[in-house]
Amino acid sequence: MHILVTNDDGVTAPGLLALAQEMKKLGQVTVFAPDRNWSASGHVKTMDRPLRVRETILADGTPAFMSDGAPSDCVALALLGLIEEKIDIVVSGINPNANIGHDVTYSGTVTAAMEAVIDGVPGLAISLDSPENHGGKLDYTTAASVARRVAEKVTAEGLPQGVVWNVNVPYLKENELKGFMVTRQGLRLYRDELDRRLDPRGRPYYWIGGQAPTGVDEPGTDFGALRAGYVSITPLQLDLTAREAMRRLENWKF
Amino acid sequence: MHILVTNDDGVTAPGLLALAQEMKKLGQVTVFAPDRNWSASGHVKTMDRPLRVRETILADGTPAFMSDGAPSDCVALALLGLIEEKIDIVVSGINPNANIGHDVTYSGTVTAAMEAVIDGVPGLAISLDSPENHGGKLDYTTAASVARRVAEKVTAEGLPQGVVWNVNVPYLKENELKGFMVTRQGLRLYRDELDRRLDPRGRPYYWIGGQAPTGVDEPGTDFGALRAGYVSITPLQLDLTAREAMRRLENWKF
Repeated sequence: MHILVTNDDGVTAPGLLALAQEMKKLGQVTVFAPDRNWSASGHVKTMDRPLRVRETILADGTPAFMSDGAPSDCVALALLGLIEEKIDIVVSGINPNANIGHDVTYSGTVTAAMEAVIDGVPGLAISLDSPENHGGKLDYTTAASVARRVAEKVTAEGLPQGVVWNVNVPYLKENELKGFMVTRQGLRLYRDELDRRLDPRGRPYYWIGGQAPTGVDEPGTDFGALRAGYVSITPLQLDLTAREAMRRLENWKF
Repeated sequence: MHILVTNDDGVTAPGLLALAQEMKKLGQVTVFAPDRNWSASGHVKTMDRPLRVRETILADGTPAFMSDGAPSDCVALALLGLIEEKIDIVVSGINPNANIGHDVTYSGTVTAAMEAVIDGVPGLAISLDSPENHGGKLDYTTAASVARRVAEKVTAEGLPQGVVWNVNVPYLKENELKGFMVTRQGLRLYRDELDRRLDPRGRPYYWIGGQAPTGVDEPGTDFGALRAGYVSITPLQLDLTAREAMRRLENWKF
C-alpha cells in the first residue's frame, strides 16, 4: 500500500512526523506537505501562479516533498503525476486541534482529504482535540495509532466512493478511549470578535480574535463523541445540496 | 434592506460593479471586497496575520471597502462589527465563470456566502456561466437582474435557516432565458494536468494546467440546467455528513 501523508501545519509540524512514522507500519509512505502553515485556509486550487516543489527531510530523516501551495495543492500535484507511483490513500494530519462542525470547509486538513476524494483516491483527515496546547509539546501517540487503525480498516473494507473520513481523537491515552463512534457533523459555535488595533503609525488594523470556538454537545455528533471520550469518525460528502430546502423552494415562482 | 455586496475577483472586477448597481434598486448597499483576486481560494478565516481595511471607490463612484483578506474574511469583518448597520443579506459575485458541482468548496464566491450563513445572515452566490471570455468584456446585465430577482424573492419569502443559495446564470439575454430551476449539485469533471516548466535558471516549476472543467449533463443538476438555458438555483447546506455512508459504517468494528 502506498500512502500519501500531508497536513496543513507545514512540513515541520510534529503531528505530520508522528503520522508519517505510524503510517510506515502499513506500507510505503510519501510525505508531501506545504512549506508553511495553512490553517483555516480552505479548499484551494492555485491557478494564478506556478508552484515550486522542493525535497526536504523530516526530523527523523524521512525524505519529504514540500511545496509553496496549499494542502489541497500538494495533494493535487502528487496525484496529477508529480509522484509517479500510484497512491492508494491520502492521510492528512495530525492537526493539533479538532476539526468538527462548520470547521470542515475552512480546514486545510479536511480539504486536503477532499481533494484526494475529488481525484478518486480515499481521503482521511486526522485531528487531535487538545483543549490546551501543553506548551506546544502535544502527545500525538494516540491520534497516530487511531489514524493507522482507521486507515487499515478503510483499505480492508473499502471506502464508499466519494466519501471523506473526518476523524477526531480526544486528548487521552489509547487505553483511556471509550471507543470509536460514527458521528454526524455537529454545530460549531464560533466566538470570533473584531479586535481593532493601531499600528506604530496610528493606522488601524484588525485581528479576527475572540475565544476558541466551542460547540453544541449533542449525542451522535462529532462534538458530542469527543466530549464523551470517543474517537469521532464522520463520513463527509462533497454534495452539499440541501434537499429539504430544495423541496420547499420548488414551489417558489420567480 | 441593507445588502452587503462582495466577490472573489477583487474590488475592481466589473462583475462586482454590475451587482452593486443592480442591488441599489433593492435598498442600501455596502460594498466590501478583497483588494485582489482570490479565485479558487476556498473558505478562509485569516488568523495568523491581521487584516487591513481601506476605503476606495468603484468605477461609477460608489464608495467601497476593501481588505487584504479573502472574500470570507471580508464578510466576517463586516458582520463582526466593522460595518455598524445591521446587514440583512450578503450577495457575492458576479463571478465570470459558473460555480457548480465540486466547485462550491473551492469557490471564493460561494464560500463568502457560506461565511454569511455561518454568521446567521442569508447568503447568495451569483455566477455567470460564460464559456468564452469575450475579450474580457462580459455582459453582466442578465446575471445582475437575476441576482436582484432572487434576492428580492429570498427576502420576501424568507430563506430556510442555514442554507446558501448558489445561483448560476447562463450567458444569454434575459428574454432568452428558459426560466428558473431549483437544482441539486451536479458532478464536475476536472481536466487538470500537471504542466512542468523550467525557469530561466533551469529549475522546475509547476502549473496546475489543463482544459477548463466540464460536467455531467444530468437533468435536475446545476450543470444540466445551465446547458438547457435555465438559471440554476441550488440550495447548499453546511452539514456535509454522508448519511448513507454513515449507516454502512455503523456496522464496522474498530
